[in-house]
Amino acid sequence: MKRVVVAGMGFAGVRAARALAGQGMEVLLVDRHNYHLFQPLLYQVATAGLEQESIAYPVRAMARNWPGTRFILAEITGADLDARTLRTSAGTIPYDYLVVGGGSVTNYFGNDAIARHSFDLKKLSDAEQLRNHILWSCERAVAETDPDKRRALMTFVIVGGGPTGVEFAGALIELVRYVLSKDYPELQAREARIILVEAAERLLLAMPEKLSAYGAEKLHRMGVELLFGRRVVGASGEQVELDGGEIIRAHTLFWSAGVRAAPLAEALGLPAGPGGRVPVLPDLTVEGRPELFVVGDMAHVVQDGQPLPMVAPVAMQMGVYAARAILAREWGRPLGPFRYRDKGSMATIGKSAAVAVSHGLNLRGYPAWLAWLLLHLYYLIGFRNRILVMLNWSWYYWFHERQVRLITDCERSVEKVE
Amino acid sequence: MKRVVVAGMGFAGVRAARALAGQGMEVLLVDRHNYHLFQPLLYQVATAGLEQESIAYPVRAMARNWPGTRFILAEITGADLDARTLRTSAGTIPYDYLVVGGGSVTNYFGNDAIARHSFDLKKLSDAEQLRNHILWSCERAVAETDPDKRRALMTFVIVGGGPTGVEFAGALIELVRYVLSKDYPELQAREARIILVEAAERLLLAMPEKLSAYGAEKLHRMGVELLFGRRVVGASGEQVELDGGEIIRAHTLFWSAGVRAAPLAEALGLPAGPGGRVPVLPDLTVEGRPELFVVGDMAHVVQDGQPLPMVAPVAMQMGVYAARAILAREWGRPLGPFRYRDKGSMATIGKSAAVAVSHGLNLRGYPAWLAWLLLHLYYLIGFRNRILVMLNWSWYYWFHERQVRLITDCERSVEKVE
Repeated sequence: MKRVVVAGMGFAGVRAARALAGQGMEVLLVDRHNYHLFQPLLYQVATAGLEQESIAYPVRAMARNWPGTRFILAEITGADLDARTLRTSAGTIPYDYLVVGGGSVTNYFGNDAIARHSFDLKKLSDAEQLRNHILWSCERAVAETDPDKRRALMTFVIVGGGPTGVEFAGALIELVRYVLSKDYPELQAREARIILVEAAERLLLAMPEKLSAYGAEKLHRMGVELLFGRRVVGASGEQVELDGGEIIRAHTLFWSAGVRAAPLAEALGLPAGPGGRVPVLPDLTVEGRPELFVVGDMAHVVQDGQPLPMVAPVAMQMGVYAARAILAREWGRPLGPFRYRDKGSMATIGKSAAVAVSHGLNLRGYPAWLAWLLLHLYYLIGFRNRILVMLNWSWYYWFHERQVRLITDCERSVEKVE
Repeated sequence: MKRVVVAGMGFAGVRAARALAGQGMEVLLVDRHNYHLFQPLLYQVATAGLEQESIAYPVRAMARNWPGTRFILAEITGADLDARTLRTSAGTIPYDYLVVGGGSVTNYFGNDAIARHSFDLKKLSDAEQLRNHILWSCERAVAETDPDKRRALMTFVIVGGGPTGVEFAGALIELVRYVLSKDYPELQAREARIILVEAAERLLLAMPEKLSAYGAEKLHRMGVELLFGRRVVGASGEQVELDGGEIIRAHTLFWSAGVRAAPLAEALGLPAGPGGRVPVLPDLTVEGRPELFVVGDMAHVVQDGQPLPMVAPVAMQMGVYAARAILAREWGRPLGPFRYRDKGSMATIGKSAAVAVSHGLNLRGYPAWLAWLLLHLYYLIGFRNRILVMLNWSWYYWFHERQVRLITDCERSVEKVE
């Protein structure tokens, strides 16, 4: 029986594994975490809206329903691509086919000061740390008597006006205005500043201008300060430096201004294209290695003159395609090249407010928000997770209350600023 | 306005604060965590049955409904009892009355090897670490080819046959038999050993012998090995040493064989009685300091010739009493000495199985389990937490499924064994 190793249990890997299961192949799943993470909702964990457990799903809970599938919890450290073996912390793993979906990491473009003093949202622990840090900043602000320091503790700078930056900004200002204002009567909600810095002249570049304008207008009315055409060039934990030398005293810097392929691509010795992504052939294999598929954020695919974006829908379609390509090869059937079918994109801004574009249709406000909500519930894995998330969302919707306001472990978050 | 400082937001502190709020006093709550923790359910977090967030409740979420109450997140480092001031990480806090409820910590009776190589359940992070460790041990067992090492990874030694040891043993064997056996088809459920070591000749010493026997019989039938009249005297992370020199190869040692007063008692310079507990007068104040109340696990009170046990019901009654005593003093009204009204005690063993004793009535099996369940739901703080816990319990009851099987952060748990 031929063995397919699926490396990485993100959106691409899970879809590939599901399509490969029970088709007469031995399927080996490898990840360094024992769960699949629903990254698009990390910002809600960071803003005390969801428990971290509700957006993660154990790989073994899926794999036990997938015949012929096994899971190995291991870190992949390298590969001998000629010998078709993976080197991992759990030993060497030979394969006949390899599907690599290692995802992406935050790109600080070589700025170490920003990397050290900023928060991002890639891993589950990132979200918990950021939540701890936000709540901890409020606690410190209560005790702070120097008004300047106090204001710095309550100033949050968000870099990047893509979906992550916009969604986090909206969720954060709602947390401060609706929830924390009741928790911290000692603080004035007005003392809190949330500043969104975007290098381009508008938010959500992947969306039509009209929706960008709606999003910006909405965020502005909610109280978020928007700085367009500006860049953050430095950070120290106490302050943030903009291009042109302007200094904002702020204890929290959130960086969502860039991603690049996960270091796994380099560890495996794969060719590196723009942003460290691996250029692949139209069937998602690496040139000269027809048994090696690269999927998701790590794959660089140009379609209609544009590189495909690093988003979950692309990853899911790539995962399914890679599985089909392997089966087609084994069964001696033909299969056309990969082609991404864009079903649209969306971003939520606040309660009852979102933007969405799908098949030329522009949605905004309540209908977009409802669509966003239903789609995210649909793609969340696990019935119980869906119930938990729905429960939390209803709670917030009706009572303006986010209950996961726990500081579970300050140590690492405090490290970030000091 | 006179100021009462309540130090510690455990069962005693929360009850004291609630009774003091809105009575014309300034009430200052101090804790080094920003949440109240429902410790009796920590073992369910450790066995993947509950999210950690569902058994913790933010202090500020309570305090905002308590008039005249403020919260300070701070570590208490000392006190000047003559000057009536507390030293904390957030500065010096003067008080007119002080209610100290710092709780208890695990007592290793000076055995450093056991302290270093064992797990306990006192803090929220303890439960998460223990869950990570249990799941991580299974993952390592899957990859382990040496049958002896594999068996050691699947051997769990629990020390102490009190409620914590019994409840954890029952929950752990159910996790292994019902849930993990499906997750890890590579492992034989029979390879797992759970050994409960108790120095006395029976479990649950606070209960009538008949109930102890029922509990032991039940645990035995579920597959837990019971060792009575034995002690654990050493540990190394790879193995556990019993008195008499017997060695059990086991990667997990859980210690619930003793507690002592939290180090806060010493930091405040309070007198130390048995187990570091502070001997108090019949009104729960410290001799010579009528403004200083010690409540909960930290207080040593002898009633009817027996010291009161270190359990939540005692702490809750003490907290309410201390608040009443302060108000009585302020209002010039008389109040009798503190007297604990024992409403009973209980321990759950497994699904539909528990033991309970109340007002001379012995319950066991399903009725005791139902009583346990309803009481725990009742005492859990926060409506949403109750719903979450009930949802998790129903899920487990109907589907034999515990979904929080996430390894969220191996680092610290791995440290424990290596």
